[in-house]
Amino acid sequence: MMNYPIRKTRSNNNQISASNRGMDLEQAINDTNAYYASNDIAYIYKKPIPIQVVKVDYERRSAAKISEAYYKIPSTTDYNGIYKGKYIDFEAKETRTKTSFPLKNLHEHQVMHLEHIRKHGGIGFIIVHFSLLNRTFLLDGSHVQTFYHRGETGRRSITLEEFETYGHELKEAYVKRLDYLSVIDRVYLDHN
Amino acid sequence: MMNYPIRKTRSNNNQISASNRGMDLEQAINDTNAYYASNDIAYIYKKPIPIQVVKVDYERRSAAKISEAYYKIPSTTDYNGIYKGKYIDFEAKETRTKTSFPLKNLHEHQVMHLEHIRKHGGIGFIIVHFSLLNRTFLLDGSHVQTFYHRGETGRRSITLEEFETYGHELKEAYVKRLDYLSVIDRVYLDHN
Repeated sequence: MMNYPIRKTRSNNNQISASNRGMDLEQAINDTNAYYASNDIAYIYKKPIPIQVVKVDYERRSAAKISEAYYKIPSTTDYNGIYKGKYIDFEAKETRTKTSFPLKNLHEHQVMHLEHIRKHGGIGFIIVHFSLLNRTFLLDGSHVQTFYHRGETGRRSITLEEFETYGHELKEAYVKRLDYLSVIDRVYLDHN
Repeated sequence: MMNYPIRKTRSNNNQISASNRGMDLEQAINDTNAYYASNDIAYIYKKPIPIQVVKVDYERRSAAKISEAYYKIPSTTDYNGIYKGKYIDFEAKETRTKTSFPLKNLHEHQVMHLEHIRKHGGIGFIIVHFSLLNRTFLLDGSHVQTFYHRGETGRRSITLEEFETYGHELKEAYVKRLDYLSVIDRVYLDHN
């Protein structure tokens, strides 16, 4: 039973789980946000996934069952919240590409969303995890916008070198697994 | 065809549509937010409804169809966004009760959510529309919390008089239909 051969399981073997780092990025961010919340540092949470409901069955009185629905293209980002009174907002993405982050991973509405946030005095960015390199960067929304618009006529990706130049590398740690607010302090709030 | 008798239609007749003001509140807020956005005043948007997806069919390549899902109890609020750099967050509710707002309309997690927002320097509140009175109030999250905790041992509603005393009445207007940010300016930001 423990080694039922067909079912895919998440093994404790790090060699295996390392090949699927996408979930790890989300888990690392969720763990970090839980740490921020429980230590009263910040309140940042994941938004629900936008779903278009088409049909609902009310067969049982207790729970309406949605029997037909579709994923919608997200018009905002994955995460938002508040830190030291500031509005925080970001999208987290993972790529298996080794040399660049393909812009097809971002929707135009998400880029516009980050632009709205910047315009109204909030802090908006993306966090990109290069899973095969095991490197993670925070890139400000203004740069995301610049590279996104470049993609309309030119290169449709953001290179690793551009992340190194314009972004801020996040190192994974044990307790605060992905302490992105340390970058916010240093770069946006001029603290520390 | 215009008077097909069975199908419920939204009539242009105000007498009829006034009996279903719930949609009107949401529409009024959405219109107001659209006004704020298009005039670069604020960027405030509705969050997706949280849905637990159980089963997805990948029959067609083009679109994954969700064939079983359920509405989740919301852990956050309906709306959030940013105004003059400040984090804004609120829940909008409508009641047909004439004398009070029943607290069963709010979930405990939503009240905690407003508390987290207050603690980290954001602005959190509820907007309650008494549909049969056609009166609308903004009530700060701190008061919501107080009344919610009172409900654990005492009255399980917030009375109309309490809204009049501790809240701020919002008058519906033509262009900025429900200009709640004028209250934010006056009460929270000490402007105007």
